[in-house]
Amino acid sequence: MGEFDLIERFFTRPAQAGYTAAVAVGIGDDCAILQPSPGMQLAISSDMLVAGRHFFTDTDPARLGHKALAVNLSDLAACGAEPLGFTLALALETIEARWLQAFSGGMLALAGQHHCPLVGGDTTKGPMTINITVFGQLPQGQALLRSGARPGDDLYVSGTIGEARAGLALLRGEWTLADAALRQHLCQRLEAPTPRLALGQRLRGIASAAMDLSDGLRGDLGHILKASGVGAHIDGVAVLATSPALWQALAAWPAQRQIAFALAGGDDYELLFTAAPAERAAIAAIGAALAVPVQRIGRIVAGHGITVVDGDGQPVPLDLPSFDHFG
Amino acid sequence: MGEFDLIERFFTRPAQAGYTAAVAVGIGDDCAILQPSPGMQLAISSDMLVAGRHFFTDTDPARLGHKALAVNLSDLAACGAEPLGFTLALALETIEARWLQAFSGGMLALAGQHHCPLVGGDTTKGPMTINITVFGQLPQGQALLRSGARPGDDLYVSGTIGEARAGLALLRGEWTLADAALRQHLCQRLEAPTPRLALGQRLRGIASAAMDLSDGLRGDLGHILKASGVGAHIDGVAVLATSPALWQALAAWPAQRQIAFALAGGDDYELLFTAAPAERAAIAAIGAALAVPVQRIGRIVAGHGITVVDGDGQPVPLDLPSFDHFG
Repeated sequence: MGEFDLIERFFTRPAQAGYTAAVAVGIGDDCAILQPSPGMQLAISSDMLVAGRHFFTDTDPARLGHKALAVNLSDLAACGAEPLGFTLALALETIEARWLQAFSGGMLALAGQHHCPLVGGDTTKGPMTINITVFGQLPQGQALLRSGARPGDDLYVSGTIGEARAGLALLRGEWTLADAALRQHLCQRLEAPTPRLALGQRLRGIASAAMDLSDGLRGDLGHILKASGVGAHIDGVAVLATSPALWQALAAWPAQRQIAFALAGGDDYELLFTAAPAERAAIAAIGAALAVPVQRIGRIVAGHGITVVDGDGQPVPLDLPSFDHFG
Repeated sequence: MGEFDLIERFFTRPAQAGYTAAVAVGIGDDCAILQPSPGMQLAISSDMLVAGRHFFTDTDPARLGHKALAVNLSDLAACGAEPLGFTLALALETIEARWLQAFSGGMLALAGQHHCPLVGGDTTKGPMTINITVFGQLPQGQALLRSGARPGDDLYVSGTIGEARAGLALLRGEWTLADAALRQHLCQRLEAPTPRLALGQRLRGIASAAMDLSDGLRGDLGHILKASGVGAHIDGVAVLATSPALWQALAAWPAQRQIAFALAGGDDYELLFTAAPAERAAIAAIGAALAVPVQRIGRIVAGHGITVVDGDGQPVPLDLPSFDHFG
């Protein structure tokens, strides 16, 4: 089966369903041709996922397809862009129809939800590698960047922090959990993250800086702080408040370990953003309107570096051991 | 060495040299932000190259960097687009400074020639895989597509046909060649193709259909014929006329074998295009102005399929053996 057949069979749909008005030419020519709306800038991001490194090779293919696109859409969300389309470059050792059907199904379902059609790409034989490049648009000069945080700004996260890392601990066998529903929820948080596109777009003109959480709150926040030339103070209890269920399940851990764990864990794919205190009511209203939890977890300060305190106001060391070193 | 260090060390340059006015935000945020010119459409293409499949692992890294970008720029050329920028996703098993310096040097030199800056991407540990996605712009509705060929149109190629495949035969040891200068030229044609960007842009409004030659003239022409619903008649002698030096070196081959070889060989990365006979003078003038050889090799006919004739008007069978079956 040739590469063109592969693309056509699994990655296009009857009558190119899912193509939006912005797609002038889709799959099948030398280039895809997109028509952004007048006056809009183009936002572009690209992430490469390698089997055995970024995902388990036996990951449910529908979830893998979802996640490969979701992590890219999350970058569009972080800059406040509206999706236009994406390209997929896919290397596979073997072509298995059932796997491809589920993989493309998971990917195209998420694409459809966000009006982000697949417009081109490449497939080849090789070690399993998934590279998506995603394109979005946003009004000129309105991109949310990492460099806009100012001392006095509040620091926020969307969704829950730490759940994806807990899901990874379950899949790795670092942790066992009797509560099947919670276990399923945590694994889904790892394998099927929700890109916060609507939230990112609504935060244009409100947030002073934003990025998405992929490598863990602590490390990712460092990028905002470095780009903005500021420091941050984090309320550890507010971070834990994003996921009461997780911390109840890990109640045997001291609070400081819970906080350090939440700040270290990756794969959250939530938005981390800053905004002036005057925006608190507007941000709460946006979260409520979108039914997306938004939690204020600290504030931006002059200087540099991150300080974290627990419920007693005591500083939290950030190098506390995680599952693999703790019972 | 972390992925961010890797990117910063080899793939950015002091003061982001090479960024054009179209780059509002380059490497270092969640997304790159590009500003296409008003009224322009966006052209996008993506190619994935896997070590051992698309290139020899011991390929000169500067040429590999050049080629990885060139094959993508060639797709922009084929639709008549002007480059805006590209993203690079790179998986490497090991990080070797000397290799990366040469690889990025070859890639960024070509990028600079075509004002096509690197604006983002991803690097990761994994089996060596190079995925570039390239973005260009062109006036609305003026993209050169595969679907516009009409019976009576002339069929053209730029540059030389078959030389890249001959270079591959030399590298594979299928063929030996005493002429060192010719050998070097043929290998360079394989390893460092020249994307025909200026030609593609000048052909907007003149060519009726176009694509770039990657898999071999015969197979690639099939895509134009299928998309346009037409057939083609090829003058084999005109194809050979694109590279007198090669066919002189292969003078022991019967002409029909030479013709079949030229039509089967891949990696030419030249433009294949069609145009009405009324455009002959305009096309000759463009080729002369750009110093790019442009050869008329046949014509589009009603019906379907490809017929090829030799200098005696005899049909050429297209399944004649290549180097590996011929002394």
